[in-house]
Amino acid sequence: MIILGIDPGYAITGFGVIRYENKRLQVLDYGIIKTDATTPFPERLLAIDQALAELNSRHRADCFVVEELFFSRNTTTAIGTAQARGVAVVAAARSGVPVYEYTPMQVKLAVTGYGKAEKKQIQEMVRVLLNLKKIPRPDDAADALAVAICHAHSGDRNSRLAVGGYQ
Amino acid sequence: MIILGIDPGYAITGFGVIRYENKRLQVLDYGIIKTDATTPFPERLLAIDQALAELNSRHRADCFVVEELFFSRNTTTAIGTAQARGVAVVAAARSGVPVYEYTPMQVKLAVTGYGKAEKKQIQEMVRVLLNLKKIPRPDDAADALAVAICHAHSGDRNSRLAVGGYQ
Repeated sequence: MIILGIDPGYAITGFGVIRYENKRLQVLDYGIIKTDATTPFPERLLAIDQALAELNSRHRADCFVVEELFFSRNTTTAIGTAQARGVAVVAAARSGVPVYEYTPMQVKLAVTGYGKAEKKQIQEMVRVLLNLKKIPRPDDAADALAVAICHAHSGDRNSRLAVGGYQ
Repeated sequence: MIILGIDPGYAITGFGVIRYENKRLQVLDYGIIKTDATTPFPERLLAIDQALAELNSRHRADCFVVEELFFSRNTTTAIGTAQARGVAVVAAARSGVPVYEYTPMQVKLAVTGYGKAEKKQIQEMVRVLLNLKKIPRPDDAADALAVAICHAHSGDRNSRLAVGGYQ
């Protein structure tokens, strides 16, 4: 199974592609899709859309996985992030690939065994689980790998972004 | 100039297509894109994406116009709405059509001449300005027509969703 984890953002979208087979994890690709603040917002979203389509056609993912969004405050950034997430979700749907989502706590629990793990601990576990020499950089790429690992470990079919997620 | 106004939502996206020429407004089309709560969320976004692409290929809009999003509270609905808006914005970008955005107050001001107009007053002005016998239904379609009229009346090139909207 090829899993494409995504950490959506309109400025930086992290991505991480892993293979999960016979209970073994293997990293295939990771990085970021960066868009420039001087680029009009619609074109920034389009760049994310196209980059994800390209990634998917290269790796032929079996699923996209994203974190559930929570915002403590209403900010322009939060609204922009949600819009970027919509772009990622619809990119998956356009390719006929299912999307799964997990809460930040589920990701922490699946990756470190502890639902309140620190960011640094998660990143270190991502490194260890994927057998990497260094922690993947930048943070957005590490976060995307973490959510992909979460799906591999939990494989929770109930996490499919589906009926009832938004009424 | 053909203007496609959009009131994004993952359950109901309102749309309104108007022609603005020689300072005259003419309604070409309006209605809603409705997605079912039993449909998986990614497919709901995809349905919106496809319906907007279809609308645009039918009417060949010169621009898409949306209202700026403001949320007073962090709710699942708000996050879902923002994701649907991202889908609308990227649909425009994919077609190479510019996107303009206006605040609710700008829309009220441009349509009724009063920035704090009631919903009912806006809808009545939409009816009068477009020379319709009845107020367009449902509300989402009327809202989409209002934002399209706002763009026709203000024609504010500075409202293009562009540099600086989201840093």
